[in-house]
Amino acid sequence: MKKITDIQGLLEYELQDLYSAESQIIEALPKMEKNADHKDLKQAFQKHLEQTKKQRDRLEQIAKKMNCDIKGHTCKAMEGLIKEGQETINMDADAAVRDAAMIAAAQRIEHYEIAAYGAACYYAKMLNKSDVEELLGKTLEEEKDTDELLNDIAISKVNKDAQGAPSGSRAR
Amino acid sequence: MKKITDIQGLLEYELQDLYSAESQIIEALPKMEKNADHKDLKQAFQKHLEQTKKQRDRLEQIAKKMNCDIKGHTCKAMEGLIKEGQETINMDADAAVRDAAMIAAAQRIEHYEIAAYGAACYYAKMLNKSDVEELLGKTLEEEKDTDELLNDIAISKVNKDAQGAPSGSRAR
Repeated sequence: MKKITDIQGLLEYELQDLYSAESQIIEALPKMEKNADHKDLKQAFQKHLEQTKKQRDRLEQIAKKMNCDIKGHTCKAMEGLIKEGQETINMDADAAVRDAAMIAAAQRIEHYEIAAYGAACYYAKMLNKSDVEELLGKTLEEEKDTDELLNDIAISKVNKDAQGAPSGSRAR
Repeated sequence: MKKITDIQGLLEYELQDLYSAESQIIEALPKMEKNADHKDLKQAFQKHLEQTKKQRDRLEQIAKKMNCDIKGHTCKAMEGLIKEGQETINMDADAAVRDAAMIAAAQRIEHYEIAAYGAACYYAKMLNKSDVEELLGKTLEEEKDTDELLNDIAISKVNKDAQGAPSGSRAR
């Protein structure tokens, strides 16, 4: 990899990281969806999978506009975050507790992306690349919305079910 | 590990994760500080190291209050996040660009903690453990403040230096 000497180079570096992160999330979300118990959580993971595919497409569009290669890097942080998500799937727990733990893990992933897209978006702004900034900003808003949605599901439903719920079926 | 059947068990699980995360950050921050170039960034990492030690102490206080063991778990997500931080340290880049990349990596770590403490804090609230909630809430606010401080250093100083700065010394 060539030496990075400016914000343009740093933006390309961040885009590579995000491309790998989104690709890993696309692999992981179907497992999260399959193992979620509450129908609203299943739906949220399903919706976010479709959204994430579009977010990866946006990164490809940006790479084309900027004439840079964003494939081939592995985002180590996302590898760790997804391992943590896998641990919640494998957790020996009641269904509602596992759902709550999966939400907490998924929100960590959303927060990672909020920080990463926030930085990339700012670099695009510094470089006066308004089209790139707009595309990154769209994804950034979606990640914030997903974090909010997961929060709502946790607070209004899953966490209540998890609070001393028996192992069997629960009223929803 | 015994089956987790309620929010109390889930809170203990999250506290174990956070204890490992904070311990790993305490190991990593001196390297970040050593390799940072801008004096404000060095200071921010130094300050956050002292803060993080107190945050880990708070988790030990909470474990004592709750009579639970929070040691022995490894937070896989933080392992990945720290690997990513290490990559920015080793980056072949001009000093200001490396500083900017280190800030972006550190903000991802802060966001991880904001999500994790946010969940733990909410579980403590559900359990009416106001003393635990207060201690976790104090750390949560510190993580948000650190994220803000890093943002300020990036926007007002480091990112400007990184924008096409030559390799040599820079006016600050």
